[in-house]
Amino acid sequence: MAQNIYDDPEFFAGYSTLPRQVHGLDGAPEWPAIADMLPPLAGARVADLGCGFGWFARWSRTQGAASVLGLDLSRNMLARAREMTSDSAIDYRTVDLETATLPSAAFDLVYSALAFHYVADFPRLVREIHQSLALGGALVFTIEHPIYMAAADPRWELDRQGRKTWPVNGYASEGERRTDWFAPNILKYHRMLGTTLNILLDAGFSLRRVEEFAPTDEQIAAQPTLSEERERPMMLLISALRP
Amino acid sequence: MAQNIYDDPEFFAGYSTLPRQVHGLDGAPEWPAIADMLPPLAGARVADLGCGFGWFARWSRTQGAASVLGLDLSRNMLARAREMTSDSAIDYRTVDLETATLPSAAFDLVYSALAFHYVADFPRLVREIHQSLALGGALVFTIEHPIYMAAADPRWELDRQGRKTWPVNGYASEGERRTDWFAPNILKYHRMLGTTLNILLDAGFSLRRVEEFAPTDEQIAAQPTLSEERERPMMLLISALRP
Repeated sequence: MAQNIYDDPEFFAGYSTLPRQVHGLDGAPEWPAIADMLPPLAGARVADLGCGFGWFARWSRTQGAASVLGLDLSRNMLARAREMTSDSAIDYRTVDLETATLPSAAFDLVYSALAFHYVADFPRLVREIHQSLALGGALVFTIEHPIYMAAADPRWELDRQGRKTWPVNGYASEGERRTDWFAPNILKYHRMLGTTLNILLDAGFSLRRVEEFAPTDEQIAAQPTLSEERERPMMLLISALRP
Repeated sequence: MAQNIYDDPEFFAGYSTLPRQVHGLDGAPEWPAIADMLPPLAGARVADLGCGFGWFARWSRTQGAASVLGLDLSRNMLARAREMTSDSAIDYRTVDLETATLPSAAFDLVYSALAFHYVADFPRLVREIHQSLALGGALVFTIEHPIYMAAADPRWELDRQGRKTWPVNGYASEGERRTDWFAPNILKYHRMLGTTLNILLDAGFSLRRVEEFAPTDEQIAAQPTLSEERERPMMLLISALRP
């Protein structure tokens, strides 16, 4: 079973204060880039793997999605999601993505934001998603970028010239990474970017778009601290299709 | 026109001593990984963009390739290639990849090793390659990895724990990078990994495989200095198809 940090009270209290949890999709600087990757949602059957507070599920319904299945490991997250929703077309369920099974050819879009880097057996999950999509259906997801995750001690350094610099080491050593983030010892799984893409290709997906999120000039003007996100990518955004 | 460092005498003298120039394909640790990506060559019409001394062209013929067009900007490189070959099915020509045009639907494989990061207008070249491939034809190429190229001062550092670490900064700032390598001020073009992939997708290619070369345990046992290549990827290997 995946580590369930989201039901750790200390973690949950801190996590709930993040702009993207308080303000929803518009609190995430990468959201416009994700929205550009999505297929039309009118009439679509949507699954959101790691749905958290349900921001994306509710937004999908405003775009005309026919139904949304929101899956999350955290009962805390789903309790909050249910408080915020009274929509019989949204179904929230507690599920561990490490072992989840999904119905066959049941979705037009499988979406996931910043959840898959907690999953150890990514090839199994990708095969499960592939069979759950209708032909022509899309998988759109974000993960922490492997450049961001790889190093043993991933935090800003200064290079010889004093420039803010991100350390990379152990890039080809895939597997567990442990960091402190609102709580100690958060467990994530580092995979090379090529590995993530090849797992999708091996499962039968066709790749549509690969974006390494960097804030726009307008975003940096509005929020200058975002400029460090241009030094190294923190997030990887991928769009793929079941052909 | 692309910078022609290969006809700089100082550069050429140093470059010619590299194991991969002296020993050919087997002198390049990434060669087995590239070979795994290639389509069957029996009867294939091959183009090699940035063919250098012609090692790949000659090897292709041993695998049954029907013809090989070897293109390179450097007259020095091609002179050496011609000295090493007497095979009327191999045609070497001096061409600048920045402006090169290629015949339509003429090739079953377009191959390129460590040349495209010298090209400023990569989208133009990729469109040119796409129309030069027969339907079902493959593009297999290697470039310096953007993790390797991005930083303003790309050389090993030590992190706070003293671990050998590669610096990344300016990752989202694409464009010119200048480094010293056998000669001062070598001009290369940094593109994000996602940008390279999206250029291929936009031109109509279907992605088949994306490998970030890391040496195997056997390679490190035979050549221990290779172990640093596991800390950060130096090379990106891509296989794509014209569907």
